[in-house]
Amino acid sequence: MSRSPATVSVSHESLPDAADVLSAAARIAPHAHVTPVLRMASIDQQAGCQLYFKAEHLQRAGAFKFRGACNAVFSLDEAHAARGVVTHSSGNHGAALALAARTRGIPCHVVVPEGAVASKLAAIEAYGATLHRCAPSIAAREAEAARVQARTGAELVHPYADARVIAGQGTATLELLTAVPALDVVVVPVGGGGLASGTAIAAAALSPGTRVVGAEPSGAADTIASLARGERVTEFTPETLCDGLRGTLGAPNFALLRSHDVEVIAVDDADTIAAMRLFWQRGKQLVEPSSAIALAAVLTQPARFAGLRVGVILSGGNVDLDALPWR
Amino acid sequence: MSRSPATVSVSHESLPDAADVLSAAARIAPHAHVTPVLRMASIDQQAGCQLYFKAEHLQRAGAFKFRGACNAVFSLDEAHAARGVVTHSSGNHGAALALAARTRGIPCHVVVPEGAVASKLAAIEAYGATLHRCAPSIAAREAEAARVQARTGAELVHPYADARVIAGQGTATLELLTAVPALDVVVVPVGGGGLASGTAIAAAALSPGTRVVGAEPSGAADTIASLARGERVTEFTPETLCDGLRGTLGAPNFALLRSHDVEVIAVDDADTIAAMRLFWQRGKQLVEPSSAIALAAVLTQPARFAGLRVGVILSGGNVDLDALPWR
Repeated sequence: MSRSPATVSVSHESLPDAADVLSAAARIAPHAHVTPVLRMASIDQQAGCQLYFKAEHLQRAGAFKFRGACNAVFSLDEAHAARGVVTHSSGNHGAALALAARTRGIPCHVVVPEGAVASKLAAIEAYGATLHRCAPSIAAREAEAARVQARTGAELVHPYADARVIAGQGTATLELLTAVPALDVVVVPVGGGGLASGTAIAAAALSPGTRVVGAEPSGAADTIASLARGERVTEFTPETLCDGLRGTLGAPNFALLRSHDVEVIAVDDADTIAAMRLFWQRGKQLVEPSSAIALAAVLTQPARFAGLRVGVILSGGNVDLDALPWR
Repeated sequence: MSRSPATVSVSHESLPDAADVLSAAARIAPHAHVTPVLRMASIDQQAGCQLYFKAEHLQRAGAFKFRGACNAVFSLDEAHAARGVVTHSSGNHGAALALAARTRGIPCHVVVPEGAVASKLAAIEAYGATLHRCAPSIAAREAEAARVQARTGAELVHPYADARVIAGQGTATLELLTAVPALDVVVVPVGGGGLASGTAIAAAALSPGTRVVGAEPSGAADTIASLARGERVTEFTPETLCDGLRGTLGAPNFALLRSHDVEVIAVDDADTIAAMRLFWQRGKQLVEPSSAIALAAVLTQPARFAGLRVGVILSGGNVDLDALPWR
């Protein structure tokens, strides 16, 4: 991958490496927040370990997704950029790509399935993106994205199976391990594997003694199944409240998680919701279920984390306040 | 008032001044958090001014109340301290006093009315205080507090009509104006007037050009009435969702607000709830209604604050998650 000037086009099909994470950090620095690392004494006490929360719910557009989207958008050369970007995501990646595109001043198209949450679509539109509706199936949204691409020449920025996106997501852990060196573990939520694989790259380079542990909903545990079987499991129907973690593990993500020997823990939604509520009450921070799952993994496996220095990526804070999961 | 060694007893009947705020800051420094000042670009844009949020919801026990309680507890001489402290408050002051007493290692008694929120009582007990239940009237709780005092010799620490408490609350604004000098205005919630009067003292001393504006629920606007009439209005029945702002303006608080020419704005609960929801969604911070009222005051009076540098004290974050006000 190219890693010199910020506007040179970067391949998005090869596997990214640590140098790509560093270039991503330089590329997004003018646009993304360096988020704080939060401590919470009472939660440490309950967990029996020292927790360092990387507050990506305070990132622009409310999630770490802005890092990868921003890296992808600012990796494009002028000619490609002028034709815009396209993705299919009704969640945090859609909003993040829309904001990144607006920041660069280029068009953004977001393909969204019928039935997506209205408030999330409003957020994407508020950042200036054009919405394209389609039937709620993976085939339909990929087809619609292809149509938009064909018509506009826009660059596809996949939510996680994209080297530029993975490298961008890795910058959160680059910041975390720079602020708090020599963590024993970093725990991250796992959906499609963009954050987890970026984290694995950054941790291996910056702090080889730091293990990366993924937290995946029991009802969408395709990554655990894939790593166990040694090949990607793509046939499954996710059943989880963690709406950001329903995606299918991507091919480059799978390769990176395997090669970095990332371990993934299954977490029940009930434990995730309890952890989210705890963090709201004690931390006073609005994190979403897909984010609280990482804390839940620690709280439900006390023996595994006892006495350790544990980084937890609080991946996002875009909660639907009209549909709280304990009501 | 005495202001040298931290353990010398301080009168709590005279009016506190700026020197008392400074001694309070020194006295509580080993125990209280210096809370961060938060910025939120999208809310600035909506408000049409620059907002600096003093994050007292991240204070110990989840509210600025810990400052005043801590100052009172650590102002006691050894003999008085050994007999403990007592207050009547089922809310943030009760929890704050319990935590401050535990920090000093002395007994704490909290008189709570029948029908108080169970989760708040659990918090007070978790900090090690003894609960004393009484009928839900002001007369009943004052009588019960007097009985506890007579029996134990515990020192009464009133939630707001106490010079030590007022001086302690002023330290939040001391920190805010040290971090962000020359604010045009500081906006604070007004209940019994402890925070507002402490803020007025600190602002007048540190930044005489900074105005203090109070935000009071329309349904509990006794302070506005008192300032208009020139004497305390004590006969009223509060009707507001802001459970921290139902108290009656205290006598020293009234005197200080008058002498510092503090202006108080009435805010409807609906506007407070809208501001709270906005801050949850954009700021990802759990602030309670009694805290969001200060932001609501700014948002509902755009002409008054246009273009100004405005400090907002986010007074607390102890929300009842089972009873969200927009459900």
